[in-house]
Amino acid sequence: MDTRKHVEVCFTPGEYAYYKNEFEIVVVIDVLRATSAICAAFDNGINSIIPVPTVEEAWDYKQKGFLAGAERKGQIVEGFDFGNSPYSYMNPEFKGKDVVLSTTNGTKSIDVAKDAEIVVIGSFLNLDYLVNWLKNQDKNILCLCSGWQDKFNLEDTICAGAICDALINSGNFISDEDSSIAAKYLYQSAKDNYFGYLKSSSHRRRLKNLNLNEDIKYCLTPNQTNVIPILKDGKLVKL
Amino acid sequence: MDTRKHVEVCFTPGEYAYYKNEFEIVVVIDVLRATSAICAAFDNGINSIIPVPTVEEAWDYKQKGFLAGAERKGQIVEGFDFGNSPYSYMNPEFKGKDVVLSTTNGTKSIDVAKDAEIVVIGSFLNLDYLVNWLKNQDKNILCLCSGWQDKFNLEDTICAGAICDALINSGNFISDEDSSIAAKYLYQSAKDNYFGYLKSSSHRRRLKNLNLNEDIKYCLTPNQTNVIPILKDGKLVKL
Repeated sequence: MDTRKHVEVCFTPGEYAYYKNEFEIVVVIDVLRATSAICAAFDNGINSIIPVPTVEEAWDYKQKGFLAGAERKGQIVEGFDFGNSPYSYMNPEFKGKDVVLSTTNGTKSIDVAKDAEIVVIGSFLNLDYLVNWLKNQDKNILCLCSGWQDKFNLEDTICAGAICDALINSGNFISDEDSSIAAKYLYQSAKDNYFGYLKSSSHRRRLKNLNLNEDIKYCLTPNQTNVIPILKDGKLVKL
Repeated sequence: MDTRKHVEVCFTPGEYAYYKNEFEIVVVIDVLRATSAICAAFDNGINSIIPVPTVEEAWDYKQKGFLAGAERKGQIVEGFDFGNSPYSYMNPEFKGKDVVLSTTNGTKSIDVAKDAEIVVIGSFLNLDYLVNWLKNQDKNILCLCSGWQDKFNLEDTICAGAICDALINSGNFISDEDSSIAAKYLYQSAKDNYFGYLKSSSHRRRLKNLNLNEDIKYCLTPNQTNVIPILKDGKLVKL
């Protein structure tokens, strides 16, 4: 009997329903930039992040005195002080705080996956540390890419492919879905130069036009932190 | 001003709504096996194919005396004489006939796209001939992959990537969507050996288990026919 566990890739939150029943762990990925920012925030000593799907919910929390951020279409929503730039969270005022966040794609994916047994946050920033933890869980894993407004995106897929590749190479995991096979192929052709590979990607162009090239470089640099944000009772906390 | 037209890729019928408004031509692709079988059928002198989304509709036509085929999950539906094997349509009894067909994924995509200005059928079988025709239309093109039960599949994506690659190389087309960029990358790494590349794909394994390896080989062999099936008033006819 094959005792290996599955590691598969779902390209968009909209397709999650076709995959979700078979997995105990969901890794939510939004490389540019929500899940990268979340990893950076925990690396910088934040206490918790409450992800909310709508700007209105983030606003309500802000009115109650929370530190609250919101991003739509790559920009900070008017009335908020921060969005999903990882650099925002390096400010010392975030240390030990509980922060509320709503973003275009990333917090939507977290919301879609919230009923899974275990929901963790993945990005290039915590890649190896996350993979090592996943290896020891003996559970089926779904990498849920956040995409861009319900469409496929390249950077999340490549990050998901990196997770699949490492877990399969450990010998204890297999991938069956074509989406996972494609993610692995794309990762393999991208891995020597993420930045160059993604040059033509739509979201990189979008952020570049917003002068966010520094954010992009940061988000595409693997293994800058040993944190795994995990969802507990609706809040992201450090594992 | 950039006068180039777009050629983009949509991975599944379920995502069509996010793409459809910007394209005049939709190329429906279901390599294994609906759109390959449709190309083979026209190559073999069929008069028309009426694609229907449900088995019930196909059955109603059969009761009225039509030649009707239906396939679900890779197999011919009980009570029908043929499904979506290209070899079925090489039978001389199909020559000059009007045939009704319902398949798991392919006829569903045709149904989803039916309101587009122009709907044509693509496969590896008519690849170069189709690309040459598309080049001369001066219209925006969406390659709609049929996927497998609403999930991404590799063979349709690679065929779509081949179409994008050839059109972009002609100089008159661009791709903007990440799905199109990924399809092109996947095509480029697959093009020297489709059969080997798709060895691990889920649908190839599925059909292999049904002893359909000959069908797969046929469907993955490019440029066997110079036909372009096109949708006119709900019927596929030869362009």
